[in-house]
Amino acid sequence: MSLPISFLSDFGHDDEFVGVVHGVLATLAPESRVIDVSHSVARGDVRAGALALTRSVQYLPPGVVLAVVDPGVGTDRRALAAETEWGYFVGPDNGLLSPAVAMVGGATRIVSIENEEARIPSAGETFHGRDIFGPAAALLASGEAAIGELGPDVPPGSVSPLLLPLAEAHEGTVTGEAWWIDHFGNAQTNIGPDDLAQVGLRPGTTVTVKIGSRLHQLSWVVSYGEVEAGQGLLHVDSSGLIALAVRGGRADEDFGIVEGTAVSMVGAP
Amino acid sequence: MSLPISFLSDFGHDDEFVGVVHGVLATLAPESRVIDVSHSVARGDVRAGALALTRSVQYLPPGVVLAVVDPGVGTDRRALAAETEWGYFVGPDNGLLSPAVAMVGGATRIVSIENEEARIPSAGETFHGRDIFGPAAALLASGEAAIGELGPDVPPGSVSPLLLPLAEAHEGTVTGEAWWIDHFGNAQTNIGPDDLAQVGLRPGTTVTVKIGSRLHQLSWVVSYGEVEAGQGLLHVDSSGLIALAVRGGRADEDFGIVEGTAVSMVGAP
Amino acid sequence: MSLPISFLSDFGHDDEFVGVVHGVLATLAPESRVIDVSHSVARGDVRAGALALTRSVQYLPPGVVLAVVDPGVGTDRRALAAETEWGYFVGPDNGLLSPAVAMVGGATRIVSIENEEARIPSAGETFHGRDIFGPAAALLASGEAAIGELGPDVPPGSVSPLLLPLAEAHEGTVTGEAWWIDHFGNAQTNIGPDDLAQVGLRPGTTVTVKIGSRLHQLSWVVSYGEVEAGQGLLHVDSSGLIALAVRGGRADEDFGIVEGTAVSMVGAP
Repeated sequence: MSLPISFLSDFGHDDEFVGVVHGVLATLAPESRVIDVSHSVARGDVRAGALALTRSVQYLPPGVVLAVVDPGVGTDRRALAAETEWGYFVGPDNGLLSPAVAMVGGATRIVSIENEEARIPSAGETFHGRDIFGPAAALLASGEAAIGELGPDVPPGSVSPLLLPLAEAHEGTVTGEAWWIDHFGNAQTNIGPDDLAQVGLRPGTTVTVKIGSRLHQLSWVVSYGEVEAGQGLLHVDSSGLIALAVRGGRADEDFGIVEGTAVSMVGAP
Repeated sequence: MSLPISFLSDFGHDDEFVGVVHGVLATLAPESRVIDVSHSVARGDVRAGALALTRSVQYLPPGVVLAVVDPGVGTDRRALAAETEWGYFVGPDNGLLSPAVAMVGGATRIVSIENEEARIPSAGETFHGRDIFGPAAALLASGEAAIGELGPDVPPGSVSPLLLPLAEAHEGTVTGEAWWIDHFGNAQTNIGPDDLAQVGLRPGTTVTVKIGSRLHQLSWVVSYGEVEAGQGLLHVDSSGLIALAVRGGRADEDFGIVEGTAVSMVGAP
Repeated sequence: MSLPISFLSDFGHDDEFVGVVHGVLATLAPESRVIDVSHSVARGDVRAGALALTRSVQYLPPGVVLAVVDPGVGTDRRALAAETEWGYFVGPDNGLLSPAVAMVGGATRIVSIENEEARIPSAGETFHGRDIFGPAAALLASGEAAIGELGPDVPPGSVSPLLLPLAEAHEGTVTGEAWWIDHFGNAQTNIGPDDLAQVGLRPGTTVTVKIGSRLHQLSWVVSYGEVEAGQGLLHVDSSGLIALAVRGGRADEDFGIVEGTAVSMVGAP
């Protein structure tokens, strides 16, 4: 029985990169369904790719995750395959996989993909999605190779972590940042409802929000419908994090937020 | 036997929204093929989504249509599932589904998706494609739920229609508008060949076309090859509607047309 | 047993064109897997489409290639289906298929798709991907039609070739051009390592490269990791051709290269 493969990358849709990897997967794992999680991660942005994977993984069918955001291609960074209770994760050793692997309970085994028989030989050294990661994912998905056949075991402690900024509560204010602006202009922060509870903030109240150097008064609501069209709001978004949105509009434009903008919320007096 | 699912949305390809819904479909309907009709409908443009679906539906394999263009997410608009002779349609109650449902012969039953067991529980209230529409489509496609298990019946008369502007013949002139500019710059109008026949216009003749405030003389041809490269033309396009095109060029740029531009055609004297 | 279909076009993702062809394929070849090679070929750019197909074909599962980059739609250019040892190729007679067909060993039979029973009847004459090429690919993939049932045989010598500029060695210098700028800004040339060997250049040396009117000294390396971040380099890329790249940057921007820019490399003294 073949496992489904969920594929995320920064390859974009300008070229045939995604299609060629699909060709490799269809050749080596002809029975596996392939799900394109996203290929629009900003070029080389490991953190954005890791966050997208973390938001997605609980909705993907258990099987194999193939993730390639790999600014270190052509250097000596390792190619990894990790086994978890949920399934397998394949990608570069740069932190891309770490939060998603942690989210599903951590790895029970990690190997460095070095076995030449698990690779597609190539003149060049730059398309590891096609030559190394894709074949490894397909071999695991089809059952043609056990994880131990891909290469030697790697001590978990040697794997690159991903350092994510955490929201902090200090003197009654929670300070964090916007870490994802979505297609609709909503700004997800790294602040959770628990962080706000710590400073006495509750849903249904008005919150003082500092974005960059400006202050805003925003209602913390459950649904967009609780404010008028064009009005800003705070809510717990579909990932369970506090997000800024504008009903029928774009929060990124109205509030001047980009990924990384500092956002703080002042606690109840 | 699992039904295929045809999926249209305004989610774009910037984010993992489409991929996450694919994950939900693959989890709940692992045997169903999923066809991405388009995810590039302009954000919240219900009419553009409805038109794209109407142009497509006759070419899709009978099964389930999942359509999400939903500016009213987070308000009290209903989530609907409709049964037709062709198959099922799942989407918001905002007119998005109405023309396509009408095109396949109308609905024999419509329900409001309210059963909590048919939803994926979520912290937030904004990603109904993932939490409500996707699961409902998957349950219908896999046969895990009958339509009546999704929620209570809805009187057909209470469902939101979509008001589409119709072309009108008046004093020998047909007046309409451009309602789709495609990837190649072709401008599809809401004028059909029957409308032109009413004012005495026939294929193979030259037609006086008013676009905005300017007049043009265009040949009504069957194929691009009948005019020189760079020349404008009228023809019946692949949807059976009158479109303006430029052989080897872009009609939108050459004629200054955007979606909604008024277009009229003067009848034969 | 149904064959997989690999689909390349210039339809883009703005519209439902790709989705509608998928609908036709799913209807006529319900058991065939469909791989989207790329749909971002520049509008009407037959050469770019042919190059993308040539780079991809060895990684696609043997079956059917469906390729539609067709600026001559609506003229009398023929619609072709070619049989090869690898599988089938379906597309317009404009050179799009020729290099990929040659790469897999050439065609054993070519027909002109003219049989009305193999087409979907349509009001318009512009969407041959949906009405002619897609159905032919699906019929071949599903085994519903043999190639001879699609239309009359065509003499191979009458098929449009694709004229590709070749690199030339002259007086110790190899002259070529950039023929693909990829998503990451890498510039693939039409110069191969064999061309450079002819003028005495070897990997591991520094090469004088003329781009437009400017001279650069670039290391010919195996991996990006051999130069510092931000530095330019030459290497054999994943297609086996000489490419210009910048470690952690974009060669197109740093060197002012677009597709078609002249690139020459001066041989060893």
